[in-house]
Amino acid sequence: METFDAVSPLDYRYYGENQELFEQLKPFVSEGSYVTYLLKVEATLVQAMANKGICSPKIAKEVEQAYNRVTPAEVYREEQRIQHNIRALVNCLKAKISPPAMPYIHLFATSADIMDTAAALRFKELTHKVIIPHLNKLERLLIKITRQGKDIVQMGRTHGQHAVPITFGFGMAEYVSRLGNRIEAIRLAADNLRGQLSGAVGAYNSLALVGRELNIEPDDFEREFLNLLGLKPASHSTQICEPEYVADLAYAVTSCFSVLANLADDMRHLQRTEIQEIVEQPDKDRVGSSTMPHKVNPKDFENVKSLWKAFMPRMNTVFMDQLSEHQRDLTNSASSRFLMEVMVGLVCATHRLTSVMSKITINEAAISHNVNLSKNQCVAEALYTLLAVYGHPDAHECVRKLAQRCREKGIQLNEQMWKEAAIKPYLDKFSAKQKEVLLNPEQYVGTSARKAESVCSLWEKRLFDTPDR
Amino acid sequence: METFDAVSPLDYRYYGENQELFEQLKPFVSEGSYVTYLLKVEATLVQAMANKGICSPKIAKEVEQAYNRVTPAEVYREEQRIQHNIRALVNCLKAKISPPAMPYIHLFATSADIMDTAAALRFKELTHKVIIPHLNKLERLLIKITRQGKDIVQMGRTHGQHAVPITFGFGMAEYVSRLGNRIEAIRLAADNLRGQLSGAVGAYNSLALVGRELNIEPDDFEREFLNLLGLKPASHSTQICEPEYVADLAYAVTSCFSVLANLADDMRHLQRTEIQEIVEQPDKDRVGSSTMPHKVNPKDFENVKSLWKAFMPRMNTVFMDQLSEHQRDLTNSASSRFLMEVMVGLVCATHRLTSVMSKITINEAAISHNVNLSKNQCVAEALYTLLAVYGHPDAHECVRKLAQRCREKGIQLNEQMWKEAAIKPYLDKFSAKQKEVLLNPEQYVGTSARKAESVCSLWEKRLFDTPDR
Amino acid sequence: METFDAVSPLDYRYYGENQELFEQLKPFVSEGSYVTYLLKVEATLVQAMANKGICSPKIAKEVEQAYNRVTPAEVYREEQRIQHNIRALVNCLKAKISPPAMPYIHLFATSADIMDTAAALRFKELTHKVIIPHLNKLERLLIKITRQGKDIVQMGRTHGQHAVPITFGFGMAEYVSRLGNRIEAIRLAADNLRGQLSGAVGAYNSLALVGRELNIEPDDFEREFLNLLGLKPASHSTQICEPEYVADLAYAVTSCFSVLANLADDMRHLQRTEIQEIVEQPDKDRVGSSTMPHKVNPKDFENVKSLWKAFMPRMNTVFMDQLSEHQRDLTNSASSRFLMEVMVGLVCATHRLTSVMSKITINEAAISHNVNLSKNQCVAEALYTLLAVYGHPDAHECVRKLAQRCREKGIQLNEQMWKEAAIKPYLDKFSAKQKEVLLNPEQYVGTSARKAESVCSLWEKRLFDTPDR
Amino acid sequence: METFDAVSPLDYRYYGENQELFEQLKPFVSEGSYVTYLLKVEATLVQAMANKGICSPKIAKEVEQAYNRVTPAEVYREEQRIQHNIRALVNCLKAKISPPAMPYIHLFATSADIMDTAAALRFKELTHKVIIPHLNKLERLLIKITRQGKDIVQMGRTHGQHAVPITFGFGMAEYVSRLGNRIEAIRLAADNLRGQLSGAVGAYNSLALVGRELNIEPDDFEREFLNLLGLKPASHSTQICEPEYVADLAYAVTSCFSVLANLADDMRHLQRTEIQEIVEQPDKDRVGSSTMPHKVNPKDFENVKSLWKAFMPRMNTVFMDQLSEHQRDLTNSASSRFLMEVMVGLVCATHRLTSVMSKITINEAAISHNVNLSKNQCVAEALYTLLAVYGHPDAHECVRKLAQRCREKGIQLNEQMWKEAAIKPYLDKFSAKQKEVLLNPEQYVGTSARKAESVCSLWEKRLFDTPDR
Repeated sequence: METFDAVSPLDYRYYGENQELFEQLKPFVSEGSYVTYLLKVEATLVQAMANKGICSPKIAKEVEQAYNRVTPAEVYREEQRIQHNIRALVNCLKAKISPPAMPYIHLFATSADIMDTAAALRFKELTHKVIIPHLNKLERLLIKITRQGKDIVQMGRTHGQHAVPITFGFGMAEYVSRLGNRIEAIRLAADNLRGQLSGAVGAYNSLALVGRELNIEPDDFEREFLNLLGLKPASHSTQICEPEYVADLAYAVTSCFSVLANLADDMRHLQRTEIQEIVEQPDKDRVGSSTMPHKVNPKDFENVKSLWKAFMPRMNTVFMDQLSEHQRDLTNSASSRFLMEVMVGLVCATHRLTSVMSKITINEAAISHNVNLSKNQCVAEALYTLLAVYGHPDAHECVRKLAQRCREKGIQLNEQMWKEAAIKPYLDKFSAKQKEVLLNPEQYVGTSARKAESVCSLWEKRLFDTPDR
Repeated sequence: METFDAVSPLDYRYYGENQELFEQLKPFVSEGSYVTYLLKVEATLVQAMANKGICSPKIAKEVEQAYNRVTPAEVYREEQRIQHNIRALVNCLKAKISPPAMPYIHLFATSADIMDTAAALRFKELTHKVIIPHLNKLERLLIKITRQGKDIVQMGRTHGQHAVPITFGFGMAEYVSRLGNRIEAIRLAADNLRGQLSGAVGAYNSLALVGRELNIEPDDFEREFLNLLGLKPASHSTQICEPEYVADLAYAVTSCFSVLANLADDMRHLQRTEIQEIVEQPDKDRVGSSTMPHKVNPKDFENVKSLWKAFMPRMNTVFMDQLSEHQRDLTNSASSRFLMEVMVGLVCATHRLTSVMSKITINEAAISHNVNLSKNQCVAEALYTLLAVYGHPDAHECVRKLAQRCREKGIQLNEQMWKEAAIKPYLDKFSAKQKEVLLNPEQYVGTSARKAESVCSLWEKRLFDTPDR
Repeated sequence: METFDAVSPLDYRYYGENQELFEQLKPFVSEGSYVTYLLKVEATLVQAMANKGICSPKIAKEVEQAYNRVTPAEVYREEQRIQHNIRALVNCLKAKISPPAMPYIHLFATSADIMDTAAALRFKELTHKVIIPHLNKLERLLIKITRQGKDIVQMGRTHGQHAVPITFGFGMAEYVSRLGNRIEAIRLAADNLRGQLSGAVGAYNSLALVGRELNIEPDDFEREFLNLLGLKPASHSTQICEPEYVADLAYAVTSCFSVLANLADDMRHLQRTEIQEIVEQPDKDRVGSSTMPHKVNPKDFENVKSLWKAFMPRMNTVFMDQLSEHQRDLTNSASSRFLMEVMVGLVCATHRLTSVMSKITINEAAISHNVNLSKNQCVAEALYTLLAVYGHPDAHECVRKLAQRCREKGIQLNEQMWKEAAIKPYLDKFSAKQKEVLLNPEQYVGTSARKAESVCSLWEKRLFDTPDR
Repeated sequence: METFDAVSPLDYRYYGENQELFEQLKPFVSEGSYVTYLLKVEATLVQAMANKGICSPKIAKEVEQAYNRVTPAEVYREEQRIQHNIRALVNCLKAKISPPAMPYIHLFATSADIMDTAAALRFKELTHKVIIPHLNKLERLLIKITRQGKDIVQMGRTHGQHAVPITFGFGMAEYVSRLGNRIEAIRLAADNLRGQLSGAVGAYNSLALVGRELNIEPDDFEREFLNLLGLKPASHSTQICEPEYVADLAYAVTSCFSVLANLADDMRHLQRTEIQEIVEQPDKDRVGSSTMPHKVNPKDFENVKSLWKAFMPRMNTVFMDQLSEHQRDLTNSASSRFLMEVMVGLVCATHRLTSVMSKITINEAAISHNVNLSKNQCVAEALYTLLAVYGHPDAHECVRKLAQRCREKGIQLNEQMWKEAAIKPYLDKFSAKQKEVLLNPEQYVGTSARKAESVCSLWEKRLFDTPDR
């Protein structure tokens, strides 16, 4: 199959046609890589047998050297013949080794032991080697932008309406915090993935039958085997590993995806023609529209949101795949294969978002222009709060009516207020600093700058202070 | 990219590695085919211009001959440079034609005109050329099985419990009916897809500017253009076509997928070791389990259910993609690319289901054995109905208690009933035929056989009587 | 239970606390109404028996007069005792009639016959009596607003960026068209709902047993019964009616909900402080924020979007409920009860949207201000089109670069263009009218006004011209 | 509104009509309780002010004594007037206190501060007081059943086909483990919920304005306030608390729901007429079917699965609600109100499942009968494993063919095997114990009993050893 014969947009476009992501992801996400993981797990199983004296170290070594020579294509050909993917793989591996080594391949294992363990391993390695590094890169960039904008006064917005001022960096700090939190959640879930070697129905039937003679405790052997792969067993398994471990990772990834989508939404709205608070510097040759030559569109932000729409609903599949009849049914087999796509989707979105975020510039002129649009109405909260603090029993309603009057008459609240006899006695009690804020509402930013900085410091410390990350 | 570098299970496995499906589907579902569709739509647009006298027929012919020479790879390369997929395609097409023809390429169109029209066209053709034929093949097979089993008395099951008897064919007729109904729904939705040529924001701005001088009504021109492709316009479009037409198709396909999944569930439960009412004849070399050599698993039915779990939740994406800000935002761009996968998923599931259904045999011995397990308790309904018809004021409660007593004592209801003095007067009124049914509950199948046949006839007529389908 | 003991936001807030909606909806959507529908269906079944001579007309009349005296509370009490909802209802009904009438209650029916038929009936009546009237009211309002704004030049927006001009009415016409289309879809689906009377497993077992003696064809009897209720049977039923009919309605309603959500999104974005193209006139006492007394928020539009987020995913339940093992399992019983909530959600959203849309005013000053922000850049498309039409071989790229240059230098495209030597020869060919449009880009609105009007006329005719709707 | 006027199945049926659950849940889940939580949070805010010297302790005390006198009904009435729920609540509270206390109500807070904090508090208390106790009760019951059945040999099932033996208790231990794991996940998520007091846009604007004069650090004050409620702040908040904390709880609850659904599925399949390995002892008066008086249906297990289908898809809403524009939009307001229903759904399902699980009996006769159906074929795995261990290079294929032959000829594998010359040399090496297992396959249960016990011990210790739980 050629790239453009593919039906998956990941394969022909977002992953397969992005050289950088393709190289990074292929060793973990491609079907070829999965076959290699399966083979590695099979080889590790023989190594565990050698460690426990079930077979000779020489056999383990032979298998170790053979497994890389099995190709996905030959496994698929064999599967076509016998209609069983893991037995096909086992047959192919056996064909590469000597007869004395053959009996030990896949011994004591059921297919799911190999597949679930390989899946845990590759999800874990993918997380540490690709997903986390990509997310960390974005997080560092967001921290940089947050600090860069921490003193730039911007109008805060709720319901799409001007609320009270913040700083640009404070607004960005939301994403430093939420993304940081999700990076931790993803790492936690990936490190909690489990493997297994409990046989056809999870009761170590075949291993127990043989172990009895060899003084091997089945669960000791399972731990030994998983230990070689850096994994641990679940507290119970049937034919399959308890599905909640993988579901937890899927959830962490999906909820992280939502954070990216939210950031993308905010950015593209800040780019609206009427708002323009951030500006994306397009490449010289970039075309915005096939018919409107003047256009510059926030297509990368839109792409991130769109990928989220494509992948978020896949959690429904994960929840349905938690259900498996008795010791297992196979109705999670095809569906669980698609889970890897969600991981790839997240990486593609993160990569795209990092790329575009590194190209935006903060348009201070527009930000300031927008602040000026409504800052003199936005003092309403400050005024109400001060009236209340200085004893007005119904400050909110009083200011609401005053603001309404100003809006209708088209006059500025923080000019009119001083002329209102009814509140005069309270105004007189305001401190000089408080009056200054009312007259210069761009000072009414609370602890924006300090909070932006403290959020950056916190997450830098939590995520990056550990040496080996 | 090689097949096993792919991350999509469709690409490396269900579509890409299935030679038969690959050949059938590629001309409609691959990215390469999409590029070809886009080019065809662009060429058709020039043809429409020639028809209306905007350009010469010679130019239209030149474009018609050129468009097939543009390759997806070159379009993607150009897109990398200018970051716009349709403008890239236009540039590639222009590079294949003479300067006088160049200005007419993509004239009056916005990208979405080309893409939405191409999407409608390929969904429609895919439906007629691949989806419907596959579904029809399954439908014909189900009709055959229904007729084959229409007289085989089987125990009806509700809640997993034996209810009252039906026939095997009656049970199958459910799927003849439901699948037939969905085939009609899919066809209806596909035939209702719309194209457009309404420009950047849907108001025919550029076309109207020029049309004024040329006496061309924009909507006439749009109809002319779409007519060449066998499509119609929606009642309104913005930059994009109203999303409900595609959503309707997505829904029809998804709800059809559920019918397949339900059938697959029923079949695999009928194959349970304790039930065994259908038997799947495995190929000689087929391996059932990598560790349990004796096993024969209903893996194909499980696969169909599993594919449904993978694809059903994609409707959430479709619903989210119905929302697009103002004249459009681009957050439906990446996500809508994934919709084609649902179509491919349905075809893969249908193909798999047809294949395995053609290999099952009806195990009459097991069916009969199962009927005998409980037929003598199952007369409860018949008894209650007759008691009621012959005037017993509380027949249901009376029979419920009797059945409970029989169950507890382990005796047969249709032996004990004749000994019950309280109902004797009613029993005496039963006709000979009615008594016969009570004594031979396998006769209590209602109109099973007739209904099975009438359902088959109905759907054969609705689906297949039209000559050209 | 008191209103504020409820856990459902519908019950304690959106439906239960909205007097108007409560009164309209209660007869169709409350559990109490469902019990009444079930009783009505049971009574109709006896009427059908009387019509066919199975029982006397007197008995049918007695039942008809009795069924309204059964209360939901007594049915629930009886259910608590016997743990079966329909048998409980039957017992309660029987307690209200004479012994000779008793045997005919529920005769030949299984619970699902009654429940599925009642569900079809109440969905259908709810649709015609409440859903469609509410949607029609909104549609008429949208038509009014469309006409009102059909000549008000507004900037078209794609990707949140100014594109080329349209008119306000043209923008609204999108929703006239899409909502009209969905109203038709909902009506079609509601009118296609089916009932049934096919007994325990769908094969008319009990009816056939008795019918034989009485010369009654089971399916004739079913048609007679359903005919009394204005319904038709499906082509097949098991214990339950084929689920696709209800799923079709659920889909039509959900996809209509998306249209409302899209409209709400557009409206709230047009209300953004920086855009302000529509203004919502709040009531005098309305509070916008508990702490910011100056705020006026688009809370109703936000509510509509939020309700869509709450209800749209319920389609997953509908798809899962399409699957029922063998002649039925009961795993669709609790879940399908929740479907009515989606209908109520749609009505609440429609009501809210109609209410707020009737209060908005079109802010022509702001619209005009926004058009002026970028109209002189937006002529790029017009310029490119004309250059192409008059023979420029690379018009798009030429204008793209010119627009880029203008953007960087902060000069107006439609001033600079006349000074560009390279395109001078083409400009000279432009007609006077075309030059006028370039100089006055607010004229570049294509057929906006005409299209807005034709969309209104079309849907008025399709939806409202029929006398009895 | 009366109970049967409700549209929500929770309100009129599963919660509102279940006296036991209603009493337990109402204090946390009803709208009335929510209003009380909001008021409590408002009162606590005044207490925090008193602690920091902003107002007098007397005022705090006055508010503390007043808040319980505000009723939901009066809040809703006031909301109708001013159209703002929290300002309505504040007005009602102010009406109950003296003028000097009035200004301090809601001072420094935005509505979301109160609502998000109250939501965190009630989700946390609901979890600890109702959800966890219900889940723990089920968990203890599952542990009891597991131990009860740990030595009862049962046939393990994969793909609905007999695999190799386990014990009944081993099969149940799966759910002890998975449910235990989810109980921990739910507790973790509930204990990690956050509150906030950061004002209109999260930057402590009003608090900072006043705090400056009073030497109050805004984030100190927030911590003081939350500390009084047993909560902590998030690392950042805008107008709203970071949505991931609540999403994490929603996920934990939803994934726990899937475990219940899986258990319910397994149980109802074990109750199939042909399997009957568990038997549900119905109450004497219970009706199974309205037309088939003999039926006993697994309706409670079906109900649990059905509730899962109703509530699982709600996670899509949670993911969509993670997105909120800028410092917040209100499109999560209505939708997030529905989240409480998922919690109630889980409790209803847990309650139902606990109730029915306490009524099932293990049908040892049927279990043994089913083991005997296929135990002599199921030795295939044991045979293959031993052949391999004793050096057969192609043991799996050899046994697969032998098993196929036996199946076709209808002979027992563990009789025929001893007659096969080709494997004789290996068989001779088998130990006596191994041969015994082959002849008595019911001994081939691996470590089933021991594993069942160890899983029980593990989770008892993890969940119940802590004194105060």
